[in-house]
Amino acid sequence: MTAPPTHHPTGSMIIGAKPVTGTGDEVRSTDPRSGAALAPGYPAASAEEVDRACALAAVAFPAFRATTAEGRAAFLDRIADLLDERRDALVERAHAETALPRPRLTGEVGRTSGQLRLFAAELRAGVWQGVRIDPARPERTPLPRADIRQRRIPLGPVAVFGASNFPLAFSTAGGDTASALAAGCPVVVKAHQAHLGTAELAARAIADAAADTGMPEGVFSQLVANGTAIGARLVADPRIRAVAFTGSRRGGLAIAAVAAARPVPIPVYAEMSSINPVLLLPAALDARGAGLGAAFAGSLTLGAGQFCTNPGLLLAIEGPGLDAFTSAAATAVAADPGATMLTTGIADHYAGTGDALAARPGVTELARGTREGGAACGGARLLTVDGTRFVADPWLQAEVFGATSLLVRCTDTTELTAALAALEGQLTVTVHADETDHDLAGELLPMLEERAGRILFDGWPTGVEVGHAMVHGGPFPATTDPRSTSVGTLAIERFLRPVAYQDVPQALLPADLRDDNPQNLLRRVDGEPGRDPLPAG
Amino acid sequence: MTAPPTHHPTGSMIIGAKPVTGTGDEVRSTDPRSGAALAPGYPAASAEEVDRACALAAVAFPAFRATTAEGRAAFLDRIADLLDERRDALVERAHAETALPRPRLTGEVGRTSGQLRLFAAELRAGVWQGVRIDPARPERTPLPRADIRQRRIPLGPVAVFGASNFPLAFSTAGGDTASALAAGCPVVVKAHQAHLGTAELAARAIADAAADTGMPEGVFSQLVANGTAIGARLVADPRIRAVAFTGSRRGGLAIAAVAAARPVPIPVYAEMSSINPVLLLPAALDARGAGLGAAFAGSLTLGAGQFCTNPGLLLAIEGPGLDAFTSAAATAVAADPGATMLTTGIADHYAGTGDALAARPGVTELARGTREGGAACGGARLLTVDGTRFVADPWLQAEVFGATSLLVRCTDTTELTAALAALEGQLTVTVHADETDHDLAGELLPMLEERAGRILFDGWPTGVEVGHAMVHGGPFPATTDPRSTSVGTLAIERFLRPVAYQDVPQALLPADLRDDNPQNLLRRVDGEPGRDPLPAG
Repeated sequence: MTAPPTHHPTGSMIIGAKPVTGTGDEVRSTDPRSGAALAPGYPAASAEEVDRACALAAVAFPAFRATTAEGRAAFLDRIADLLDERRDALVERAHAETALPRPRLTGEVGRTSGQLRLFAAELRAGVWQGVRIDPARPERTPLPRADIRQRRIPLGPVAVFGASNFPLAFSTAGGDTASALAAGCPVVVKAHQAHLGTAELAARAIADAAADTGMPEGVFSQLVANGTAIGARLVADPRIRAVAFTGSRRGGLAIAAVAAARPVPIPVYAEMSSINPVLLLPAALDARGAGLGAAFAGSLTLGAGQFCTNPGLLLAIEGPGLDAFTSAAATAVAADPGATMLTTGIADHYAGTGDALAARPGVTELARGTREGGAACGGARLLTVDGTRFVADPWLQAEVFGATSLLVRCTDTTELTAALAALEGQLTVTVHADETDHDLAGELLPMLEERAGRILFDGWPTGVEVGHAMVHGGPFPATTDPRSTSVGTLAIERFLRPVAYQDVPQALLPADLRDDNPQNLLRRVDGEPGRDPLPAG
Repeated sequence: MTAPPTHHPTGSMIIGAKPVTGTGDEVRSTDPRSGAALAPGYPAASAEEVDRACALAAVAFPAFRATTAEGRAAFLDRIADLLDERRDALVERAHAETALPRPRLTGEVGRTSGQLRLFAAELRAGVWQGVRIDPARPERTPLPRADIRQRRIPLGPVAVFGASNFPLAFSTAGGDTASALAAGCPVVVKAHQAHLGTAELAARAIADAAADTGMPEGVFSQLVANGTAIGARLVADPRIRAVAFTGSRRGGLAIAAVAAARPVPIPVYAEMSSINPVLLLPAALDARGAGLGAAFAGSLTLGAGQFCTNPGLLLAIEGPGLDAFTSAAATAVAADPGATMLTTGIADHYAGTGDALAARPGVTELARGTREGGAACGGARLLTVDGTRFVADPWLQAEVFGATSLLVRCTDTTELTAALAALEGQLTVTVHADETDHDLAGELLPMLEERAGRILFDGWPTGVEVGHAMVHGGPFPATTDPRSTSVGTLAIERFLRPVAYQDVPQALLPADLRDDNPQNLLRRVDGEPGRDPLPAG
């Protein structure tokens, strides 16, 4: 008995919420442990299929954005329910394609469905519309004031490029797709080649949910690509109005360049690269250097270091506390058995970039883990360099995607401050500080704010909460657009723009803007926030 | 007795809030009525002076953004007071440089000071910080939730390029400068060559206000440029973190290209070109075609048509109502005496682009005003074309900056809809509708939303209210970034980005984020908006 296609990948793309077999060359994902190509094969999209997905998205846009917030919330909730129902199939397939452990993938399904439900709740909260009303003032002199009302509307169809390292939470049905759909934007996903089967199962859940909740067919498509041309064509398509991407700096910059060359430019939200500096302040090191060293190694090697927020850089002032940290961290790194990485390509790139970093002048190796897996196994590595070198050599900030970190040893706070000042933009900066470090931490904090999207104290950057307050973003090159986040409810704002309505008759006003506030939205009336209806004029 | 430099331009730039004489070639503004160069001459900035202004802005940034919202509000209020105090001198100089009538310029000083005071009020309203708090949940399983708090912080130094057509409200001390300073971003203005003296007087008011309120010297600079190289250097400077521009499409695209070529890209908010379509629906035309025609001509010729929101396009269905409109509009346009334009360059460009539009196949002239002024006088002009031609010829959407408008005559609603569908992005779309037109207006509204930043009924697009709900922006080519507005309090968001703080100790948290909410900000706590302090943990 064969499992149904909702639980067993068939080699299909999804165009207009329906399974479609591509007409291009076949692509397959690979078991990273064995290097074996996995069945089924995925015939890739042709240019015509890209055009069709975009055309259907454009046709769906007016109908989709006309759905109510409650209607879209029901759609997102239904996707979440279907993902949960199909969890075991998703986990098995993702495990085969990524070698990520089953418990981690089980958790990731929950993170993904939870994220969809959070956006459903945000749709119902009545805040994201950003309504502002400046009522008419017919009595104003010398000229009366018109009635002006503002709300946000969706940008239009969005292209989503998922990440290799979160085959569910940052991929087909991940945060970019959830926030774009919540905003009222149809989505066209370019499936990640490393997990085509997982992508298909997730896409089928979205397509089924669209059908179950009466959404227009063009609201969702997923394309398989052989090489980069199909993705570039998708970004260049005039019907696409924004792009969301999670991946490498090279990939993100290539997409940004295609978008910038369009006759009509569009926003590109590319989350690209970050080495997530960790500052170890003196009193914290003195109090618990060894404990911090062991905990750091745990964060470094988690998931083979394959997190956007992996701690790839440590900054500290020399002294006995740092010696204790270094000794404990080196011991833990040396004892780490390594883990199979997501693809052999990623493992090769990890080894190559790590070797290049280790070969920079002044860099020495403190510890190296073993590699007990196969060809795609990435071994942990801890390198070190002094602060002067770090400030002088921008190459030392290159991201090594995986479990390699560079410890920068500074002689004093002046050198530590100079090292911080030299940093590129980051997703996160972490500070370990005891109470007696707080004066120093307070002095450094403004520099950290200017260089990162998230600042965290006394924890580790891996682990990105999905909530209202999270920022997963930051200054370039962490992202191409520091004004946003790809995780958390604020992510919906990436796909909206404001429109003003002047003296539009009540009968023609969108419900968001009507005097009686039928949806109980939070609105600013003459600047004052509240949910009250307007007094009868 | 010579007037003081606060009331009498001296030929100075402002660098670091102090008057400085440039070291480049001299530039002068011109009296557009006579073509005579005006005293004083303005030696332009050298590359070194651009560097110095940017360096001072970068130095000022940490101190400026550390000022309280109340401190920056006092700074903006002080600028407003000084502009009002110096109003007569500003009006006289602007009148000499632009030929705009004194009453209009007097009103524009009030608009400019009012705009600064509105941003001061917005700073005090405690909403723009965008605070979100997700309190810790230590009891959550399987993992406790960290405490995460979000606020917005300023991007950094902003380059502002003012417009020729509003020498005060969209120039040195205009909305871009006001919103950037409100956000906590130092500003470097490139003075508009057409009104260098007005720019100097406005810049002196900002510099004096900065000194009076204890702001850091680098908070404001204004450079004079001879040619485009100095402006390009300013946009390319790595210390500049965003650009705001109001002007031509050519100018805006050139600046966007310089910004996109930077190693670190930055946001560019260029408000460029719009022909502001006006839809005349059948019942409204039947009821009051002649009145609409006369009122339209008034909006068209206001300020020699030199508004970003000038109604350059009319769309209507043929019939007796439209005939009445056309006849009245043509009569009024033919009777218009014309007015001196801002510069001879603008007048030449107006004549050239108008002739090019009139020469397109199928375009005929309905009326032409006289030109009673001198060489820089722009005459009003009303052209017409049929709907089929309009849909087929994208050149008919070229902006003619001045009092020229094109009436598109459609045979029926199908052709009208096709003409709307063919439109590029716009700042505004206007609808004239009677109650029996409302069904049609309701059907068209979603198309209008997708093509414009502001939709207005039964009025004229000239006249942009400064308030909370205004959107002066729109899809490309109206602007380079449809996610924003350059007028109204939402404009502050252009210069902010979110930062998250995870488990940061209360003693180190910015006041915006502290449990006790000392500034009474509107905050979302677990998504719920309110101003209450957090309960004691």
